[in-house]
Amino acid sequence: MNCLLLEPEEIASGTDSVRIEGRRRRHAEEILRVAPGDTLRVGVVGGRMGSASVRRLDPEVLELRVVLDDRPPPKRALTLVLALPRPPVFRRLLSTIASLGVERLLVVRTARGEGSFWQSRVIQPGAIRERLLLGLEQARDTMLPEVSLHRHFEPLVAEALPPLLDRSRGLLAHPDAKQPCPHALDEPLTVFVGPEGGLLDHEVERLVGIGFEPVGLGERVLRVEPVIPFLIGRLSM
Amino acid sequence: MNCLLLEPEEIASGTDSVRIEGRRRRHAEEILRVAPGDTLRVGVVGGRMGSASVRRLDPEVLELRVVLDDRPPPKRALTLVLALPRPPVFRRLLSTIASLGVERLLVVRTARGEGSFWQSRVIQPGAIRERLLLGLEQARDTMLPEVSLHRHFEPLVAEALPPLLDRSRGLLAHPDAKQPCPHALDEPLTVFVGPEGGLLDHEVERLVGIGFEPVGLGERVLRVEPVIPFLIGRLSM
Repeated sequence: MNCLLLEPEEIASGTDSVRIEGRRRRHAEEILRVAPGDTLRVGVVGGRMGSASVRRLDPEVLELRVVLDDRPPPKRALTLVLALPRPPVFRRLLSTIASLGVERLLVVRTARGEGSFWQSRVIQPGAIRERLLLGLEQARDTMLPEVSLHRHFEPLVAEALPPLLDRSRGLLAHPDAKQPCPHALDEPLTVFVGPEGGLLDHEVERLVGIGFEPVGLGERVLRVEPVIPFLIGRLSM
Repeated sequence: MNCLLLEPEEIASGTDSVRIEGRRRRHAEEILRVAPGDTLRVGVVGGRMGSASVRRLDPEVLELRVVLDDRPPPKRALTLVLALPRPPVFRRLLSTIASLGVERLLVVRTARGEGSFWQSRVIQPGAIRERLLLGLEQARDTMLPEVSLHRHFEPLVAEALPPLLDRSRGLLAHPDAKQPCPHALDEPLTVFVGPEGGLLDHEVERLVGIGFEPVGLGERVLRVEPVIPFLIGRLSM
């Protein structure tokens, strides 16, 4: 945790004082080892960043005096479209995706994705939000990426993706692509990453048909977890 | 597992037949769902790749007829110098690093790394090899990266790193660096990734003194696990 995130409702109006309990209080005490007088980096979810000085720390409560005088870092102009991976991988990836500054995440179901993954509690809104917040705390950001779930491929391709492709360049990570994935693109991007079992030919055709360019990552077959930072490190300026 | 790896001693001389038990037999049966007559991609650790047809599959043994008519993909000309992270992260990273085609890995101890991590069994040679093999199976490769452990910073900097820097460009991932990490470098590289707590100023000075260029990854603070593929996606052609 490189930044302690506060919920907007935790900031009482008309005061700069905040009282914190639970995981964040424990983390501040046990990992960050703060003491009264110390300063912490803080942010308000969806809002500004700044610093906080520790007024009081006891086994129940961490009390802070907060000054919000800074902005969160800009997001990358990058939408990620991701076939839902195995639940433990998805949990870790949510934090990674938030920390990397992805603006928007579409979680999608493809023919070769496991249907059972969609029964997991990892896709419940509260569980998703919790993992995204961990990524924001890591990266010192306050702005949650926008996440949506798409259980059906056809409406995704027919309705959800075309408006995104109207205002961004679409890239499809695809092992058979002849064109290698480009570097350092200074334009809005929508990047599609299929399931580890691959997309069906029919699915690739549909995506290419609406404007995605297939790009390759070399002859090594990578797991989805490293593929996401690999792509973002490569594509970002 | 996109490629079943055989140990050299499993290939009896003068025959193309191989018998496999344990994890790999179970994986072939339960995940790959092979049946007699099917073909699998195979490789010999440290050697050639090819294909195998399934002769027999029963609860004890998978018997293959192997043809080794292909080469593994080339490694990237990249040496990674990595401060030992938390053991579960290191386990996953070893497979990722092998799958990404890193040629050589130096695992190092720095002042802010936790000494207790060096007591973990994850750094035993057998445990390291096992995790590397999983990464090779994923990426369809047979060549293990060379791994060495360095428990002392001074001899690392004075003795182990200079010969590497004589024949490669050294980059140090560093949050304070003004120069952003370059893209698509077509030359041998040695990339140093410190601990999540950061390097001491003194350590940075020593590394810069022997020729490492500090490069930044942007204002977001990332965990080490995504940093490795982020860097490799960015640096590789």
